[in-house]
Order: sequence, then C-alpha cells, then structure tokens
Amino acid sequence: MVGLQIIPHNASNHTVRHVISVDGHDSEAIAAAITEAKSVTNKPSMICCKTIIGFGSPNKSGTHDCHGAPLGDDEIAATRKFLNWTHAPFEIPENVYAQWDQKEKGATNQVNWNEKFSAYQAAYPELASEFERRVIKGELPKDFEEKANAFIQECHENSENIASRKASQNAIEAFGHVLPEMLGGSADLAGSNLTLWSGSKGIQEDAAGNYIFYGVREFGMSGIMNGISLHGGFINYGATFMMFMEYARNAVRMSALMGIQNIFVYTHDSIGQGEDGPTHQPIEQLTNLRTTPNLTTWRPCDATESAVAWKAAVQNQKAPTALIFSRQGLPAMTRNQSQVSDIAKGAYILQNCDGTPDVILMATGSEVALAVESAKVLTEQGKKVRVVSMPSTNVFDAQTNDYKESVLPANVTKRVAIEAAHVDFWAKYVGLNGAVVGMTTFGESAPGNVLLEYFGFTVDNVINTVNKL
Amino acid sequence: MVGLQIIPHNASNHTVRHVISVDGHDSEAIAAAITEAKSVTNKPSMICCKTIIGFGSPNKSGTHDCHGAPLGDDEIAATRKFLNWTHAPFEIPENVYAQWDQKEKGATNQVNWNEKFSAYQAAYPELASEFERRVIKGELPKDFEEKANAFIQECHENSENIASRKASQNAIEAFGHVLPEMLGGSADLAGSNLTLWSGSKGIQEDAAGNYIFYGVREFGMSGIMNGISLHGGFINYGATFMMFMEYARNAVRMSALMGIQNIFVYTHDSIGQGEDGPTHQPIEQLTNLRTTPNLTTWRPCDATESAVAWKAAVQNQKAPTALIFSRQGLPAMTRNQSQVSDIAKGAYILQNCDGTPDVILMATGSEVALAVESAKVLTEQGKKVRVVSMPSTNVFDAQTNDYKESVLPANVTKRVAIEAAHVDFWAKYVGLNGAVVGMTTFGESAPGNVLLEYFGFTVDNVINTVNKL
Repeated sequence: MVGLQIIPHNASNHTVRHVISVDGHDSEAIAAAITEAKSVTNKPSMICCKTIIGFGSPNKSGTHDCHGAPLGDDEIAATRKFLNWTHAPFEIPENVYAQWDQKEKGATNQVNWNEKFSAYQAAYPELASEFERRVIKGELPKDFEEKANAFIQECHENSENIASRKASQNAIEAFGHVLPEMLGGSADLAGSNLTLWSGSKGIQEDAAGNYIFYGVREFGMSGIMNGISLHGGFINYGATFMMFMEYARNAVRMSALMGIQNIFVYTHDSIGQGEDGPTHQPIEQLTNLRTTPNLTTWRPCDATESAVAWKAAVQNQKAPTALIFSRQGLPAMTRNQSQVSDIAKGAYILQNCDGTPDVILMATGSEVALAVESAKVLTEQGKKVRVVSMPSTNVFDAQTNDYKESVLPANVTKRVAIEAAHVDFWAKYVGLNGAVVGMTTFGESAPGNVLLEYFGFTVDNVINTVNKL
Repeated sequence: MVGLQIIPHNASNHTVRHVISVDGHDSEAIAAAITEAKSVTNKPSMICCKTIIGFGSPNKSGTHDCHGAPLGDDEIAATRKFLNWTHAPFEIPENVYAQWDQKEKGATNQVNWNEKFSAYQAAYPELASEFERRVIKGELPKDFEEKANAFIQECHENSENIASRKASQNAIEAFGHVLPEMLGGSADLAGSNLTLWSGSKGIQEDAAGNYIFYGVREFGMSGIMNGISLHGGFINYGATFMMFMEYARNAVRMSALMGIQNIFVYTHDSIGQGEDGPTHQPIEQLTNLRTTPNLTTWRPCDATESAVAWKAAVQNQKAPTALIFSRQGLPAMTRNQSQVSDIAKGAYILQNCDGTPDVILMATGSEVALAVESAKVLTEQGKKVRVVSMPSTNVFDAQTNDYKESVLPANVTKRVAIEAAHVDFWAKYVGLNGAVVGMTTFGESAPGNVLLEYFGFTVDNVINTVNKL
C-alpha cells in the first residue's frame, strides 16, 4: 500500500490533477469530457460520471431493488414507458445498428494492418517472426523443449545440494537465455526470492527491460501480471514469500479463473523458513493453492525437480502455475534416468523395494529427504518401504489410472505422508488407515531446523508413525 | 479502497495535514515532535522519522545485510566500538534501568484507578458490574446459556423453511437482546448478509451504537474487528459474501493466530448463490477456512443448526469462528431432542438405519436435504443408509474417539460426502474407498438451482455415486 495516493475529486489543490464531473447518463457530455481529458497531457485526468442506479425505472431507480434482482414485468413495462422505448425485446432499431456496425471500418483496418505488417516483415524479418511466434501464435521457441531437457539433465548430473529457491534461480538463468519473452519481478523480495538472473534488466531503467521491481505490493504485482498475460507476448513470473500470496489471493484466483499463464514463485515455503515466526510460516496455504481449480502447484524437493517444475510452468500456457521453494538448503536425491523422466508426472517412485511394499512413504519438497532417511532405517528394521516423491499432486491427479495405481497401489493401505503443511490435504492419498506427519497448528519462531524437529519432522517420529499403523 | 487517502508528506497543500520530519535516531527530537503534534488539534499529524537500517554498524548499516541475518561477532564488536557501548550483553546500565523503572509510578496509578473505580461502583453499581463482566473478566451473562438453549428449542419447534442467512439473522435478533456487547457490521452488504436486527443502531449516528457500516472494505472490517477484540468488552460480528473473505484473508488469519474472538458471518456460500457467477461462488474457500489453525468453521443446514452455530460462536471466546450461510432457502430437518443436543458436537447422525449401515451419506449446509432425499430413495431400494450432518468438521474432530466412532464407524467404508465445495477436503472422512459429490472446477453463471443440478447435486447422481462404490 506504500505510496498509494487516491485523492477525492473535491480536494482543493487542482495543480496535481485534472477532474471533470459529468452526467453519466449523457453520452455526449461524456464524449466531450474524454476529448477534454485527452487535451490535458501534463497530469492525470479523472472523469466523474454521476449516475442513478436503475435509471429509467420509475419505482426502483436509485434504490438497491434494481441491483440484485430482475425488475419484473410490471416495472419493465413502466420503464419502457418512461424511456419511451417502443421496440420489442432484442429488437435493435436500425439507426442504432447502423451506428454500431463496424464491419466496413473493421475490414479497412484489417487491410491496413496487414499492409503495415507486410512492410514490417520485409524490413525486420526476424522481429516480425518473433512477433508472430510470441504475440499472435503464443508459441514457445522450437528448441525450448530440447534446451529445457538439457538443463534438467545437467541438474541431474551435477547433483547439487542447494535451497530450492537457488535451484529456481538456476532454472530462471537457464530459461532466460532461451526465452526472450520471460518478464520477471518480485514484490520487494528479489534478493530473497532469488528471481534475478544475469540478463535481468529493470524496466525502471529501460522500458525494454525484463524485470519489474513491484515494491511491497503482492496484489498489485499479481494483478499487473494478469494484465500483461491478457495482453500477450510475455511469460510472466512474479515472486514473494509464500505466506504473502494471501495478500494477492484475489488476483491469483482470477488468473486461474481466466485461464491465463502466470508463474507465481513462492519461496520460504514452511516452518523451515525459521526465525520470522508464524506470521511468515505457511501452514494451510499449500492446500489452498492445490484446491484452487485450474491452478497447478509444484513443491520440488531438489534442483532436478525444480528444473522440471519450471519447465512445466513455462509449458503450462493456458493456466497459472505456483512454484513453491524452500529457504533452506536441500540435498540432491539419487535417481535413474527413468525417474528423472517421471518427475513430470507429478509423483513417482523415488525409492522402491522388492515385491509389494509394507508401507509407502510419500513426501514433497523439503520433507522428501526425511522420507528417504526414514526409509533407510525402516528397511534396516526389515520393512519393505517405497518412497514416493510428489512434487505436484495436481499433475499426478491428471495421470492415467494405471500410472496412479503403479505408484500408489490400492492394496497398500499402510501409507504415511510427510509434509510441513496442514495434514488434512493428505487424507486424499493416505486414506483412513494411513497417517500424516504434518502440521495442525501455527508455527513458532526459532531457527528452521529447530522448528522442524520440534514439530516432529524427524526420522524417529516418522518411524513411530509407521509402527503405529 | 474507496475513500482511502494517503498523501505524501511533501505534498504542497498543508491546510489539510500537519507533517513533521525528524531524525528518527534522536529521541529528544521525536519527543518534541510528539508534543508539537499533540498541540495541533484541528487536523491529523504525521511524524516522519528518518532512520538508517542497522544504525551503528560501521560496515552493514544502510544495507539489507543487517535485516535478514545476525550481524556476526566481528560486526557486533565494531558496532559496540562505534556506539561507545561498554556494557556486557544483557547488562542494563543503572541510569537506563532507573529511567525505565515504572514500579513506583505503576503502584500509584493502580491505587488511583482502584479508588476511581470504587467511586464509580458506588455511583453506578450496574454499569460497574457490567464493566467488570464484559471488560475485566470477559464473561458472558449468566443467563446466556439458558436463553440460547431456549432459542434453539424454539427453532426446533417452529421448524421453519428459510435461508440459513435468514436463520442467522433470527439468531442475531435473539442473542442481541441478551448480549449488549454484540457489535455488528457488514462490508456494504448488510441487506444481503442479513446482519441487522431490531436493536441495531449505526455508530455513525450515535457513537454508543452497536453496528458499523464498514463500506466495501472487507480487510478493513476484519482488521478493525481484530482491534476491537483486542481492546475487549465487545463480541464482534462482521459480514460479507463468503467469496470476499479472500480480500480479508490476512486479517482473518491474524485473528486465529492471536487467539481472539471474532464472529465472521459469510453468506452466499456456494454455487447455490447463482447468477453472479464464478467470481462470486466459493469453491476452495471452505477448505481454506477449515484448515486454518485455531479457526472454527460452521456450515449449518437449517434454522436449528444455525442457532446452535451462533451459540457456539458466542461461547468460543478465545478464538475466531466463521459462520457460513446460504443465500437460498433450506428446508428444516426433522430431529429428536437428543439430535438437537448433538448438533453442538459438530457432526451427528441425522437419520439412522437398523444395524450396520451399508453406506453413510455425510453432508453440510444446503446439501444435507439432498442427502436425506437420496437416503429415502436408497432405503426404498433396500439399502441400509445412515445420514450424518456435519455442520462443523473442526468441532467434530475435537470429540472423543468413541463419539467419532459412533457417528462414523471404521467398519463402514462405503461413504459418500456431499458438499457444493471442493472435493479434496472430504477424503479425510470418506477415505480411499469412498466418494465425494462436490466441485473440482469453478462455478458458472445461472440460477442457483440450475447450477446445483448441472454440477451433479441431484438425487440421481448421489444414488449413482453410491451404487458405483
């Protein structure tokens, strides 16, 4: 909210603003006001259109009766009489139709535009082709898939132990070189979200830049991202701490409702963020994101999963994606090539056992390493344990029943989910006979590793939970 | 946001505001500014305290290095030197201690206050006793329980078919007469939320009133409610459409985090609200509220359940409650006296069968009637069906294991939940072998009854869902 300035139109100081007040039912007065406003170029103009709700309805205008319910037959008749409107319902008078008919004008505009664009193509063939790809067709570069896969393979081979927010930055760096349409930003947390890359240039220094320092305004950022996405030609990513997603919740939901591409980067994803305490520690937010229709949420466990999540977000062109990253460092998991491929299915077997498992441990993000450590001890104790990493439950839910059954077989009902977020979401995968190592309360303020231990994210607690089943 | 006015302190028009700028590290300058500000009584004052982040740290002040991480031993030493601070850690110099020691002053203040209050008690015994009850002890009137129960019994006997938002208004009317501490409000939707009662008086016409017309500002309303609750002496209720809860999400969560009583009244609770369309139709919001730690959510199915929910909200004095009500009319359910008592347990058997049920149907709010109708048809088809009404999953979760087992026996795994909200939440109660008649997409714009049918909230669909198990 810092810096917001809304000034009432009756304030006395007219040097900083240009205000016109008109009868909002008088279309000619409004047209004149627009012309006047256009002529004032040294300050913003505001046109106040005074209107009466339900104008024309003799008995209901000016009241809320004409807001939430239809007028009703009698009042419709009275309104027609008042407005002297003699045409049948849905009958458009010829003079109105003629005035609004833009077919001829539109055809001329189209011819003119095509001529202009042909000239532009001739003069700037590369730019014109890029315009067609990005704005008209909305396609990714032909080599994106190949280069993204090469980057994923690189992450797999490098096997780095880094925070997933750092892994996200590496993905942005890799993809930034391939995607000139990437337009980044952060709500005053660029340094913490790690959303700047070597090619980042702030639009405040160069309008042709590719990064917006949005300031402390998560809602503004997300709303602006929606507008840019609706315009087309860009792949937006915008970042904040996951907890502050709530300040932008309306715009995030609108993005999902409109079915537009936005990549929301949310770091500091759990009690693992530590000292800032419960005001900054998400608990119920992951469930909120995952149950928002049309929004895909990823919470990767290491650099390789982070790269796959970023690739999926870029390719998810008709809907928004939320990418959830840790503040704290995360160990790289060991995978074979087929497991690397299966990350894109949202959930996959990260470690298997011979035959039917006695128990399945499933986890996301920072808790996958805990699942793997716990599985090691349980295996030593003679249990057959499968570990499933589930970076995107939304993507997993969309897989074939065969694939889902291969990962979570119906006959294995001893299941434990581990996630430093609200337990309720996981009933969906562990059922009535399973258990969840998760959160039911708000967090606390202490170093992240102390909190994770305090709230039971330990090998001992996972093993006890398994043994109680 | 309408009406918000934040004006930069360098704006030229000083007739509407009083601005002082001081060195924020100079405590005497700040004290002088406060004295000056107090002397200006005809307009608001703003004191701008210019500060340097990490002031005193020679190498880190003025940078973000002293924001997110400790200074470190070397820089702490350098800062001590710069500030000429020679005292050991946690050692408070005697002169500072003496300056801040308020024991003597506090004791005097306490004696003075007690004398004043004794005089007040003598002069106004009833008001003093009410002050003690409401503000000091935070207790409900002794007869609240009895009168609330009488009202619940009245609802049970009257068996009215009304929208639950109307049932909520009836509860407010009943409790308003018993609880002078009730302070209501709505974010510009009083007429739709039905939160006014016969004793409502707007504070804009009388500061001793009991209703705040908050305007279109859900966040402001919820933040103000938090402040009033922290002050004490009032039971706040504030209303908006359930979808607009999202605009206030941060304040709602803070209310839960601080553990203060607030009663959030959210009406128009599902696709059943109809024509306004998906922007106004909650889907994932119920799950969001239910998974917020420390917040209790109720979604009653008729007038009797609404009365019980309101009573529970009033008695939930150390945490907030969300009351979720329908726009559309809901039929009164048939109950015996013991069922009326069990509503307060959050979930209870509304209709039972002989012996072990073949299937349990569970539902909340507007979908309970559908569960009952579906049970009737299934029973005619020879199935043994139990119907469980679950107005508050949070309250039900807190019951004894014995009670929970008596309502949802572990050996009955054929379970169908019916709720016009996101399906994922219900896995917690139906498990992997059950099914949910619910929502997975956004809603649409059409009359509520058309939408409910379109999205499968029909007897036929419930029966098909049961038969597929």
